Amino acid sequence: MKKDENGQMALEDLVILDLTRVLAGPFCTMMLADLGARVIKIEIPGTGDDTRQYPPFRQLKNGRESLYFANINRNKRGVTLNLKTEKGREIFKKLALRADVVIENYRPGVMEKLGLGYEEVLQKLNPRLIYAAISGFGSYGPYKNRPGYDILAQAMGGMMAITGPAGGGPTRAGSALGDILGGLHGAIGILAAIHARTRTGKGQRVDISLMDCVIAATENTAIKYLESGVIPPRMGNRYASVSPYDAFCCRDGMLIIAAGNQKLFEKLCRDILKRPELIADARFTDMPGRLKNQDDLQKIIEDFLKDYTVAEAEKLLLENGIPAGPILDISQILENEQVKAREMFQEMDHPTLGRMTVNGCAVKLADTRPRIRRAAPALGQDNEEVFGALGYGREAILALAGEKII
Amino acid sequence: MKKDENGQMALEDLVILDLTRVLAGPFCTMMLADLGARVIKIEIPGTGDDTRQYPPFRQLKNGRESLYFANINRNKRGVTLNLKTEKGREIFKKLALRADVVIENYRPGVMEKLGLGYEEVLQKLNPRLIYAAISGFGSYGPYKNRPGYDILAQAMGGMMAITGPAGGGPTRAGSALGDILGGLHGAIGILAAIHARTRTGKGQRVDISLMDCVIAATENTAIKYLESGVIPPRMGNRYASVSPYDAFCCRDGMLIIAAGNQKLFEKLCRDILKRPELIADARFTDMPGRLKNQDDLQKIIEDFLKDYTVAEAEKLLLENGIPAGPILDISQILENEQVKAREMFQEMDHPTLGRMTVNGCAVKLADTRPRIRRAAPALGQDNEEVFGALGYGREAILALAGEKII
Repeated sequence: MKKDENGQMALEDLVILDLTRVLAGPFCTMMLADLGARVIKIEIPGTGDDTRQYPPFRQLKNGRESLYFANINRNKRGVTLNLKTEKGREIFKKLALRADVVIENYRPGVMEKLGLGYEEVLQKLNPRLIYAAISGFGSYGPYKNRPGYDILAQAMGGMMAITGPAGGGPTRAGSALGDILGGLHGAIGILAAIHARTRTGKGQRVDISLMDCVIAATENTAIKYLESGVIPPRMGNRYASVSPYDAFCCRDGMLIIAAGNQKLFEKLCRDILKRPELIADARFTDMPGRLKNQDDLQKIIEDFLKDYTVAEAEKLLLENGIPAGPILDISQILENEQVKAREMFQEMDHPTLGRMTVNGCAVKLADTRPRIRRAAPALGQDNEEVFGALGYGREAILALAGEKII
Repeated sequence: MKKDENGQMALEDLVILDLTRVLAGPFCTMMLADLGARVIKIEIPGTGDDTRQYPPFRQLKNGRESLYFANINRNKRGVTLNLKTEKGREIFKKLALRADVVIENYRPGVMEKLGLGYEEVLQKLNPRLIYAAISGFGSYGPYKNRPGYDILAQAMGGMMAITGPAGGGPTRAGSALGDILGGLHGAIGILAAIHARTRTGKGQRVDISLMDCVIAATENTAIKYLESGVIPPRMGNRYASVSPYDAFCCRDGMLIIAAGNQKLFEKLCRDILKRPELIADARFTDMPGRLKNQDDLQKIIEDFLKDYTVAEAEKLLLENGIPAGPILDISQILENEQVKAREMFQEMDHPTLGRMTVNGCAVKLADTRPRIRRAAPALGQDNEEVFGALGYGREAILALAGEKII
């Protein structure tokens, strides 16, 4: 992909006021910032985003600092503002007047209680403003006031029920997947609303529920259940529709083989296992048969693989056009040539943390490339720039800080 | 959220030519279609999308039909077109001249071989056209030609390595998560490119790799490893940063409790367990202590919960402001009041399948609501409408069908 380090960025004309904390909201605004939006992260004076206290930390001379926060909040400007004060709300309204998007992940109703509700106040102030809220269960429905955390979304959205070893218990995906899915859906909602605004001239509310997003990610689970009456069971690394499609034991570890269709299965039998008779074996003639008899099939494949290392088997299968690959841990991913070519991790300099690695952006746009261009902000770092642009002079800003409004 | 069934839709002015098959691409265009885009799904004459042959099926008088396909392809128009013929490519170019987006999930290089490469042909034809490609490993980098399947993205992107019971093997998330993440990133990339076009007047290439998207979804795994040198282990339902935050045994099943901070932990000890002395217990005074001693903490909590059903314990915890919830399977999710209020499943009529349920859209836009408004197309169903608009009369269309071009 061609380099264009000084070119335009896709969202560079958008101003986003970001009240979000922890992960779902900050992941959403991270993506928008990576794509060029001017994201102004608004934090509580004195303490800031909870994740400033989340591990992993780097020990510095005068205390420890969070790499978690620094990773997810790069590319954002940072200001402090106390919305529980009248002056704080006044300043927020001035910012909202000039913004394209306000995004928050409070529990529903918090902004209304502050006198900053969208329909009542902000939209009237700035009809072009888009208002995005990300919460555990969304801003409407009987669960709207329930507290939401990633693990609850994974549990109540149905992902845990279908994840885990066959015969074992429900299992959480190993990252905060509900938050990530919420952030991605939030970005889609915001960008769709921005596009609608080009025709309507008006902003609107974008409402994201982590539970909804996890349900969406379980794709065809509901129709499988509705049509069969059978609750889809946990099945380890297997997949209900395709076989062989699993992790298989080699001499020194596991290899994924995904022979997704009849042609690939026949190739596997003929060119790899050297057992063409399996193609006509009554147990394996079609996909339903292979699914029913996959224990037998696994035994045959693993009996072959026991003489090969993962690397040898992977090479052999790929040379014969059969989809295969290893299970990589993060140490291997960081060293992987493809991951490097795709810039999925990037080193950057941070003013206090020093040299550090951050995640790259997975949305690769050829001409308006996502770019890491700013370190995550220190608490209130950009107060002077952002509030200065509203007309507050240096002394006024010092006074606001003295009053703990910023 | 207010009803606006006949209102505008966010993306109603966008025309998307959709060459994608199976799940990642079709999930992407499903979201764009749900938000209003005019998606024209282009399939191979005679056979169509592979998923027309994927279970679950509904048995009909004259054969079986796939509900998998019908779910993911609602809201799309369907035409057939053989791009391996000169006439087929001519028609495709005519469509591309009037489209905003072309999206495909072939292996990289296929469109170039057909003489329909973006940079060489399509962009020159229509400089405003956006070209999105979703593939296993992306269109550049040393792995670009490797075959990609969801399970390979989950394995090579690091999600499997961190998912699974403590001490157990790497585990695949129970849905085709790599495909879903690829589809979501694709939608963000397309909408960002659409926005950039409002300023530049030009389309561009959007390049999505399923492996990249899974890596992005592992969020802070890399920085945890880089800072500690320790590969993050699988830990069942636990989370490395917070405790108690897990699934706990009640009398009749498991309950999720997420006491995400000090205040919630103190509430749990005082108001639920009625054991305020635990707050000062040396093992549990702060989060690092609770993480280190979470087996002890689990025992204490489960010793309390053994007298409660999941429903009783959930009620008690929520009344006291402590985040908690059950692990729901799909039968419970379909009956859930919140899920119904959010319209995460909707019934619709399909011309051949009859009454069926499809997934709802998790991007809730208040004024330009996502809507299910068309059943998934029969193969070539909209040939007359779509090719008719290019100037092909009824006879010409019959002739094209006779030549197996459409």
